[in-house]
Amino acid sequence: MKFKVFSELQYTVNMPTTFIFNIQVARTARQVILEENLIVDPFIQAEQYNALNSDGRFIKLYVNNPGNFSISYSATVDLQYNIFYPEQLLQTTPIAKMDAETIPYLFPSRYCQSDKLQRLAYKEFGGIQNTYAQVSAIADWIYKNVEYLSGSTDASTSAYDTLTERAGVCRDFAHLGIALCRALSIPARYFTGYAYNLNPPDFHACFEANIGGEWIFFDPTHLVPVNGLVKISNGRDAADAAVASIFGGTICNSMIVKCESVDPTFSPIYSNNHEKEKGLSYQ
Amino acid sequence: MKFKVFSELQYTVNMPTTFIFNIQVARTARQVILEENLIVDPFIQAEQYNALNSDGRFIKLYVNNPGNFSISYSATVDLQYNIFYPEQLLQTTPIAKMDAETIPYLFPSRYCQSDKLQRLAYKEFGGIQNTYAQVSAIADWIYKNVEYLSGSTDASTSAYDTLTERAGVCRDFAHLGIALCRALSIPARYFTGYAYNLNPPDFHACFEANIGGEWIFFDPTHLVPVNGLVKISNGRDAADAAVASIFGGTICNSMIVKCESVDPTFSPIYSNNHEKEKGLSYQ
Amino acid sequence: MKFKVFSELQYTVNMPTTFIFNIQVARTARQVILEENLIVDPFIQAEQYNALNSDGRFIKLYVNNPGNFSISYSATVDLQYNIFYPEQLLQTTPIAKMDAETIPYLFPSRYCQSDKLQRLAYKEFGGIQNTYAQVSAIADWIYKNVEYLSGSTDASTSAYDTLTERAGVCRDFAHLGIALCRALSIPARYFTGYAYNLNPPDFHACFEANIGGEWIFFDPTHLVPVNGLVKISNGRDAADAAVASIFGGTICNSMIVKCESVDPTFSPIYSNNHEKEKGLSYQ
Amino acid sequence: MKFKVFSELQYTVNMPTTFIFNIQVARTARQVILEENLIVDPFIQAEQYNALNSDGRFIKLYVNNPGNFSISYSATVDLQYNIFYPEQLLQTTPIAKMDAETIPYLFPSRYCQSDKLQRLAYKEFGGIQNTYAQVSAIADWIYKNVEYLSGSTDASTSAYDTLTERAGVCRDFAHLGIALCRALSIPARYFTGYAYNLNPPDFHACFEANIGGEWIFFDPTHLVPVNGLVKISNGRDAADAAVASIFGGTICNSMIVKCESVDPTFSPIYSNNHEKEKGLSYQ
Repeated sequence: MKFKVFSELQYTVNMPTTFIFNIQVARTARQVILEENLIVDPFIQAEQYNALNSDGRFIKLYVNNPGNFSISYSATVDLQYNIFYPEQLLQTTPIAKMDAETIPYLFPSRYCQSDKLQRLAYKEFGGIQNTYAQVSAIADWIYKNVEYLSGSTDASTSAYDTLTERAGVCRDFAHLGIALCRALSIPARYFTGYAYNLNPPDFHACFEANIGGEWIFFDPTHLVPVNGLVKISNGRDAADAAVASIFGGTICNSMIVKCESVDPTFSPIYSNNHEKEKGLSYQ
Repeated sequence: MKFKVFSELQYTVNMPTTFIFNIQVARTARQVILEENLIVDPFIQAEQYNALNSDGRFIKLYVNNPGNFSISYSATVDLQYNIFYPEQLLQTTPIAKMDAETIPYLFPSRYCQSDKLQRLAYKEFGGIQNTYAQVSAIADWIYKNVEYLSGSTDASTSAYDTLTERAGVCRDFAHLGIALCRALSIPARYFTGYAYNLNPPDFHACFEANIGGEWIFFDPTHLVPVNGLVKISNGRDAADAAVASIFGGTICNSMIVKCESVDPTFSPIYSNNHEKEKGLSYQ
Repeated sequence: MKFKVFSELQYTVNMPTTFIFNIQVARTARQVILEENLIVDPFIQAEQYNALNSDGRFIKLYVNNPGNFSISYSATVDLQYNIFYPEQLLQTTPIAKMDAETIPYLFPSRYCQSDKLQRLAYKEFGGIQNTYAQVSAIADWIYKNVEYLSGSTDASTSAYDTLTERAGVCRDFAHLGIALCRALSIPARYFTGYAYNLNPPDFHACFEANIGGEWIFFDPTHLVPVNGLVKISNGRDAADAAVASIFGGTICNSMIVKCESVDPTFSPIYSNNHEKEKGLSYQ
Repeated sequence: MKFKVFSELQYTVNMPTTFIFNIQVARTARQVILEENLIVDPFIQAEQYNALNSDGRFIKLYVNNPGNFSISYSATVDLQYNIFYPEQLLQTTPIAKMDAETIPYLFPSRYCQSDKLQRLAYKEFGGIQNTYAQVSAIADWIYKNVEYLSGSTDASTSAYDTLTERAGVCRDFAHLGIALCRALSIPARYFTGYAYNLNPPDFHACFEANIGGEWIFFDPTHLVPVNGLVKISNGRDAADAAVASIFGGTICNSMIVKCESVDPTFSPIYSNNHEKEKGLSYQ
């Protein structure tokens, strides 16, 4: 399944500024980058580094001179997500068998205060039999109970707030899903990527829960097809996986994001029609 | 410099429970473990794993049967901390030159909401010339403005609260130090360890800030000598480095912690007498 | 219906301290005080004042000398609560017809951040037809979803916290009930009183919602009979109606609270058995 | 001293809506209304009521039909504020001597969580000798440490947030001042009014502290002359004294606010030049 993605971010830089961008697609066994292109204008030497506990490929660069600055990225990827069937999804991994890469995703993080949600999570979802059904119920609950409302939240909004205020954007939906999973001792992590047919176009945020050793994908917004994502990176939450972390002083003037299928046979699967007994993984 | 450390944790387990313990001392180039001993009673096979982005050596084990359970650990270590002098401490590493291991410590975490403290941090400490002087001023400010008060906080207390409520324990002091550093774009991380002469005896928490590429140690509590620490592990905050993470149902009945010098020449250095122009690192 | 109430509070006073006590029963048309007795030991001249927007009768006194100090209060009251039947409870008062005494109870207060709960309140209770059914549903929801857990909260816990953390004591249950009512534009206020058969004995907190112009009583804890309350006072929340507000330095050594029926015909009505179509008012 | 004030609020009403407006100037012994005029368009019968514990004169009205709706108010007032000199300002009223109207302003409220700020308030301002000097120091501290930044806060922002986030508008400055006073057991209340020469024109918010039995005026924003205020009302905080409380669905299309001196001899006094030893009261 082939997708073509593109993003362009334009800034006015007011003082010497370091940028860390998280806009390149992840290179994984199942997501092959056929071609990609990164343009920094005016040209500045950028350095790339890989996140320690994720496939994320970050770009660091330092803009010394005030003025306009833009970065644009395009890539064509061939990705093959995995489908999991009931018998596989019913497997669970005891915490004592989880590895050092998975365990940190059990703990609370900046935007996912799972330690404060345990009683609520057990009351609402604790009686559900298996892990996959629990996480599905969490994603459904968020979809039904939280209103998708642009501008209702900001960069400091966390799952604790969203649970009560009941409004947010994709990032808030993801944080709440993650926090509720972790409150039930299910490892969960943030997923940021390019999304097919997202309207208005933007970067998208969803989450993955570790079920039977696999990172199963969930999108409580139901805004895009579950098979229409191109992964940029994972993280504990948006603190790890911001599109741009900026140290200095800038104004973002424009942001363009695109994600198109270049596969004539691509058939989008929307959560609503999605047969609930199947899971899907981008890992 | 040799220290002998000991800890014993006793629990009554009420239901099948997984424990992740973080009580073994770190094995680093400067902290050599001369001997160590771990006893689990009744005997249960424990598994050890190393943290991904720290020297932490965690122990996982699963207690299936209700009843009493205890874990005790002892070690003798030979450690050699580093002293840094002014000319070294005046060096700074631009963010664009930081590596993948350091960068995550710039971002906010569960107990260190640095994103919400930027204006305050710049107002209070932004005018100070160099990074080492800034972090020293942060540690002093915490010592002067926050009251050390056992029982005033709990496991959900964060730097955001402590800044206003002005009371806490070592963990809260460390979180506030970390949050203020990160608010100034200084990487900072949690440090947990055994501490010489801590009264009452307990595990101790402090923090490290990355200055000129070195992790310099700070303890805003002033409760123990700065050269009397034996590192267990680092982390973004207490979420990463809890002494015990427990998944199940238990009651902790008792905790014994000891840290003794076995070096007749050991001369404790207290922050108060500490010549301010010297830095110290356990890295 | 006659009740005999008693309370005694003992303090060690460490520095000159002003106390405001809120332990005397309210004097209302339906709650007649047959006899009452207040003892301050050592004797200090106390001053009484009435709350502006409540039947509360507060006692102010200033203890200048360090040492032990106690206040005890006893009263026998004859009270006649009102029962309201469906046809009465179905009446609603439009906000535009509410008076100056009722309107302040529409607004958020320290422990009842109704402004932040509107979306949640409308999602959960907005579809319910009439005001009485809405408030009954709120009280039931709290009873079912919040765990009564002594020691789980403190004097700074508010409805915003309880909604997520799902544990608390009578005060927290009342705050949450009030906050959810106000979020639906239903005036609601805190009720503190002596409660028959509360175990362990203590002062009790409940709430009243204004329905069709009457202050109808609700107790989401279900801990005491709904006809077993003797009102001390009302307020916006516990900030207005604390048992004791203390300005200075003291330690509370003991608190004794009693509430007995002195009416051989008294038959307690518990919410559980309570016919839901009847409302009850202490106003 | 004569001022002419004017305000006009225009709404599009989408569903039946009740408005409570708080835009009329207070009628007090020292603030005489020479003429005033209220226009509701289209005409709807409005009802006026007085706040219980303030000079506020609220207007309630119910708009049944969707469409445009506007309310405009103008008044000419003659006001005579009081000046207090050092010897008067050094008087203090013990809490035990405060009356039922003053005592509620000692307690925390929705936006002024004074109960959580006691340690901080005592550390920062507790050592200052007298009440007037303490409140002056609080107002100065806010002016110096909090940035006036339009759009940085919203209707749910409280003093607890502002203390850490260090940005806000006049309402936030007032809330923080009130909260810090109450944390020191100084009664303090919200003041909303028309302000001479406020730029951009808007309603203004300040606070009053009760010193020696008088409500002394403080404006930590330093945006307007301290003798250029026309009082609308007081309250515990903005929850009591919002310009408009709206129950229903509307969009505010425009707001015009004016306050002009009609006194040729008026000489504005700005806090900066203000002789610190004098206090001023609008009571």
